[in-house]
Amino acid sequence: MLKSETRKKLKRYIEELKTIKTETLQTDPKFLTVESTLYYLNNGKTIIREQLKKQNQDGSASIVLPVTKNKKILFVIEPRIGPKKTVAVGLPAGYIENNEKPLDAAIRELEEETGYVCTKYHLLAKYYQDPGISKAYNYAYLGLEAERLKEQSLDPTEAVRFLECDYDEALELIRLGYIEDLQAQFVLEKAKQYLSKRREPYEF
Amino acid sequence: MLKSETRKKLKRYIEELKTIKTETLQTDPKFLTVESTLYYLNNGKTIIREQLKKQNQDGSASIVLPVTKNKKILFVIEPRIGPKKTVAVGLPAGYIENNEKPLDAAIRELEEETGYVCTKYHLLAKYYQDPGISKAYNYAYLGLEAERLKEQSLDPTEAVRFLECDYDEALELIRLGYIEDLQAQFVLEKAKQYLSKRREPYEF
Repeated sequence: MLKSETRKKLKRYIEELKTIKTETLQTDPKFLTVESTLYYLNNGKTIIREQLKKQNQDGSASIVLPVTKNKKILFVIEPRIGPKKTVAVGLPAGYIENNEKPLDAAIRELEEETGYVCTKYHLLAKYYQDPGISKAYNYAYLGLEAERLKEQSLDPTEAVRFLECDYDEALELIRLGYIEDLQAQFVLEKAKQYLSKRREPYEF
Repeated sequence: MLKSETRKKLKRYIEELKTIKTETLQTDPKFLTVESTLYYLNNGKTIIREQLKKQNQDGSASIVLPVTKNKKILFVIEPRIGPKKTVAVGLPAGYIENNEKPLDAAIRELEEETGYVCTKYHLLAKYYQDPGISKAYNYAYLGLEAERLKEQSLDPTEAVRFLECDYDEALELIRLGYIEDLQAQFVLEKAKQYLSKRREPYEF
């Protein structure tokens, strides 16, 4: 069950960040671009495939599931173009910058989006996000002993709220359709699995 | 451990489907397109976001993890632009056509890509694949009692091989870096979880 306090905060943040109007622009895309390539296969076939790039890069990203000293999971709430409610609950994440290590990107994005800092990180999974159209290769981390030590540091085009939840509340957020993001759902599974197998199982 | 027969087939299929040469094309993309939209948020901010479309649609897809009567998992092997080895092991999947139900798309794609037919399906998960840039909402199914009853029916631009594996071999394929696709990794977890919780647990 969602605690009343969690539910109230969530509703407030969604109200604050929801889209009230949209306007289609005729300008050329600046962030997402597409390249066509002809692939000659070893079996003699040739196939055309289109590759999505983000800021002219592969679009590889790091994502982190932060768990606080009180065993709460830290989620971020952001405007998102995918979901019908125009606002989504997910995990801190962002693109890996040029020459940046994946773990450094995770640490940086967590700090920028929330001001939280973790003392330990564990790599939970790595994967291609959509390998049919993109070379984006993402790294998912568990961050332990998260604590709010800094202020958020957002781009002017970002609007991010954050929310601490119990693990059971997180499952309820999936069930209620607030956490609809594939990566957030997967990383939650992997974190639970990893923590339950530790020598001293870590109860959420 | 990978059985010697599985390893041999896998190597043969990868050799057959690998890319031996590529050629960047200057033609406009036909499959992937991008739209820019201005979003007016309730908090007074405006943000520009770009939306990826596939064939001018959202790009929603169905994916299926087929388990045969002998408790083998059926994987597909395809050329993929993401992975360095240019060929990936994954699950049968494809885009949901106009007015098609998600389950019908799963059944159709499984048949087209492999010729296999399942007797029962169970919805394992649904999620946005990349909600920051796309409205693609995907459905993941477990297919039971899969049996090869038909021939493959591929587009001329498709080249798909398939392979039956034990569950332990599937985990080994992840560990060895053959299954690098986020959705395949997630659906494998969800299937294992679902099958182990059934009244009569279903041993792979």
